[in-house]
Amino acid sequence: MNYPGNIKKEYKKIINYGNRGMDLEDLLNKSNEYYLESNRAVIYKKPTPITISQVSYANKEKMITKAFFRTPSTLDYNGIYKGRYIDFDAKETKNTSSFPLANLHEHQYLHIKRVIEHGGISFLIISMNNNFYYLDGFDIIKFIEGNTRKSIPYSYIQEKGTIIEQKINPRLDYLSVIDQRYFMEE
Amino acid sequence: MNYPGNIKKEYKKIINYGNRGMDLEDLLNKSNEYYLESNRAVIYKKPTPITISQVSYANKEKMITKAFFRTPSTLDYNGIYKGRYIDFDAKETKNTSSFPLANLHEHQYLHIKRVIEHGGISFLIISMNNNFYYLDGFDIIKFIEGNTRKSIPYSYIQEKGTIIEQKINPRLDYLSVIDQRYFMEE
Repeated sequence: MNYPGNIKKEYKKIINYGNRGMDLEDLLNKSNEYYLESNRAVIYKKPTPITISQVSYANKEKMITKAFFRTPSTLDYNGIYKGRYIDFDAKETKNTSSFPLANLHEHQYLHIKRVIEHGGISFLIISMNNNFYYLDGFDIIKFIEGNTRKSIPYSYIQEKGTIIEQKINPRLDYLSVIDQRYFMEE
Repeated sequence: MNYPGNIKKEYKKIINYGNRGMDLEDLLNKSNEYYLESNRAVIYKKPTPITISQVSYANKEKMITKAFFRTPSTLDYNGIYKGRYIDFDAKETKNTSSFPLANLHEHQYLHIKRVIEHGGISFLIISMNNNFYYLDGFDIIKFIEGNTRKSIPYSYIQEKGTIIEQKINPRLDYLSVIDQRYFMEE
């Protein structure tokens, strides 16, 4: 999937061996395409939530000429894997010592809690210190409920999280982390 | 959830007792809000997929000034109910004798097949002849694979589908249809 005019692409570059020049969203879209094509899972990124306030029909093409971004109340990615509901978000921080919780809206935090309560698997993929960490929703909830801190220390992410392996395909093999954590009996 | 500038609202009115003046999308959004508030399920409509090609920062507010609608490759609604992945779409037709399959993009059809294959529940809610019908993905696949017709006859929808009960809350109780079909053992 290409997003020709997507302005995010201009400033969110992550440089690392093998995935040079691709940002986290690109890596996840490529990974999800691979998972879909290999029939391993059906997971998509949701479109960016916007409020459309003006549409034009010039040149016979329907075009949005005025719209605003809305704050998402859910996470960006969801779908199904091995019969389980999967729901997650991708976050990046340049902070090296902790992950600022300002990156996680309150609605998103409540969403994680609800998804887990209803039997789904929810987590964050955090790009930090040149690694991609899987941090499970359980550990996010545990941290937030047990702390008044406004950021999650890097040491907590290292301890509770799992580094996601980078491959040619899938670029970020986050489902293998889920296998380890949720499907070990198989 | 309000979508102030959503142009769909202007021409897709369904008039019926109790839900007067609300279109199918409104009814489903209200139903999903109710399911969420009553902690029965976590189901959301996905935002409309668009490609953004121009953004302005005038008046300190980030505003989209040029964007185009994209054809969705999935269905509009998804989430989790009783631990199961739920994925569906809402369709309306003024045709009284059959549901034209032109309303279901090929990608959406493939998506329904994949979701079911991976253990999810997928279906359409069809507004037709002043009723809202639940038509399960299994029956949609069965029809399409067994027919060369370009529309599903109303008689098939009546036979295989289930009329969704309209209430004050939830407006369209489609989860009760899922209960009957998927959770009868409880």
